[in-house]
Amino acid sequence: MRLIFLHGETDLNAVTFLSPVTEEIKLVEERMRSQADESHADLRAALEHLLAAGGKRIRPTLSLLVGNMLGAPLEKVVTLGAAVELLHTATLVHDDLIDGSLLRRGMATLNARWSPPATVLTGDFLFARAAKLAAETDHLPLMKLFSETLATIVNGELTQMFTSRGLINRDNYYKRIYAKTASLFEMTSRAAAMVSPVDDTVIESMRDFGYQIGMAFQIVDDILDFNGEQAAVGKPLGSDLHNGLVTLPAIYFAEANSNDPDIQSLPSGGWTHTVNMTRLVESIRASNSSKQAMCEAEQHVEKALGILNTMEPCAERDALENLAKYIVDRKV
Amino acid sequence: MRLIFLHGETDLNAVTFLSPVTEEIKLVEERMRSQADESHADLRAALEHLLAAGGKRIRPTLSLLVGNMLGAPLEKVVTLGAAVELLHTATLVHDDLIDGSLLRRGMATLNARWSPPATVLTGDFLFARAAKLAAETDHLPLMKLFSETLATIVNGELTQMFTSRGLINRDNYYKRIYAKTASLFEMTSRAAAMVSPVDDTVIESMRDFGYQIGMAFQIVDDILDFNGEQAAVGKPLGSDLHNGLVTLPAIYFAEANSNDPDIQSLPSGGWTHTVNMTRLVESIRASNSSKQAMCEAEQHVEKALGILNTMEPCAERDALENLAKYIVDRKV
Repeated sequence: MRLIFLHGETDLNAVTFLSPVTEEIKLVEERMRSQADESHADLRAALEHLLAAGGKRIRPTLSLLVGNMLGAPLEKVVTLGAAVELLHTATLVHDDLIDGSLLRRGMATLNARWSPPATVLTGDFLFARAAKLAAETDHLPLMKLFSETLATIVNGELTQMFTSRGLINRDNYYKRIYAKTASLFEMTSRAAAMVSPVDDTVIESMRDFGYQIGMAFQIVDDILDFNGEQAAVGKPLGSDLHNGLVTLPAIYFAEANSNDPDIQSLPSGGWTHTVNMTRLVESIRASNSSKQAMCEAEQHVEKALGILNTMEPCAERDALENLAKYIVDRKV
Repeated sequence: MRLIFLHGETDLNAVTFLSPVTEEIKLVEERMRSQADESHADLRAALEHLLAAGGKRIRPTLSLLVGNMLGAPLEKVVTLGAAVELLHTATLVHDDLIDGSLLRRGMATLNARWSPPATVLTGDFLFARAAKLAAETDHLPLMKLFSETLATIVNGELTQMFTSRGLINRDNYYKRIYAKTASLFEMTSRAAAMVSPVDDTVIESMRDFGYQIGMAFQIVDDILDFNGEQAAVGKPLGSDLHNGLVTLPAIYFAEANSNDPDIQSLPSGGWTHTVNMTRLVESIRASNSSKQAMCEAEQHVEKALGILNTMEPCAERDALENLAKYIVDRKV
């Protein structure tokens, strides 16, 4: 795993968000890996492939840091972290299949190597094991929350699929990124507090913390889709817009340039034929729309940091601060 | 819903397995329908379509009859019934997509009308809502059991996909039909007992009852694939074998006719090219293999009836008896 040091850190050895839980993340990965122990060798290989493809394990890290900060039993937050990451992985497996994506984080997706049927079932298997892991926390409200979040995520994907391409709508955008990303961050942070010996006020604070960094995370993802380094992002610039998804930078641009001919033809639905998409992506890149979108992400992170300030100082609190800051500073 | 009167009943007005719970099944269906209340109109329409396609609602009936017999709160067994039937529906949605089936029970499948992506996500949505319903029973062991069963079902489908076509193996067959069908019957009956005021012996009896009728149910399904009325079954005769699945009638035939040239070429893997499949299906139909398979199904039902005999007589016990008998007497 590549450690990323943060903007503004004067000491490269300063605590990163990962360092307090490096060992515990390995427990989460073992726990995930063990989910296919009794399954067919091909399925075990698929899970290995998915785990090797990695990712930053931000969600399990969030689970561990919040839980450790609040005194949760380690076993519970490891189980929670594995459940959440497996759920996340399951959604990626089906998403990549649906989008026909052949690469993710520079590695072949499952559907690039397997048939659609095998990919559908592998995603289902991961959903099933994620639910089983959630059950293994032995915590009824957590399980209910987990299943509600799964429903929120899938319902969000379906709504996105049914929504007309090219729709420019802030409310739709915020709902979508909540369902797609923030709901799982929110659930993770809240659930880690729920299994800790803390009162409802703290649980609510941690829920809000997860919500704020989750919203920031997706806004930054959407900015990187326009302004990231193409090699690092691994997709063509403006790929969301090419796929009909109008994200926050495009919304800011549309609001400031309502007479732009490309913007005017976006909501018509016939945009794939009439919009010069490459030109529109370039216009958005050249504007300050991404900067405005970044301000929103930073406001979410500011709120998250404000919540952390109400907690007792500790190594985990520092790491959560770094995690929140990393979300807006990251390049991929 | 078509009521089917049972072989050997002298009085056609005799209690069928449905009559004690006709009203309660409506509650289950309302509960299922309400799962898409806050979702996109297209998704609501899809769920309506799936519910209209019907099916015999055997699993919710099992939940209601066992729960009512044992004094479970109605709300719990209605919720359980809706969770189980929705899970079953979700697996059918993905199965039909995977198999490319365009009809089920004489109605268009979802994938016949929708794109593969929308179908994948609708299945995921149903899984999510099934898990949420299971959580709404507020019963932790039930939820764990539910998620384990989901994992068993999906793992079974994956194992079937990875298993070489044409494999003649009893052990493989029994494991497969357990995962595919009996596990959910077993779970339903066991869970209905778990939410009832009964001790572990009764829970274990009801688990075994569900297991026995579930095994019988799938064996009969596999017999009907060879010997059913084609119009009623809705598939070409021997469709399992055509798809490479060797079920119990074929296993009996293979054991008695190991020198049959079609049987000999089955396990070679190249069977789609060398086996005269139509001839093999006809040979199996002409043999007494289905009768032998039916004996096994009847033995399972006998065990199930033996278990019921240990319960106090009541209307629900009678209905469960009829349900068990119906499983081997049905024509579709």
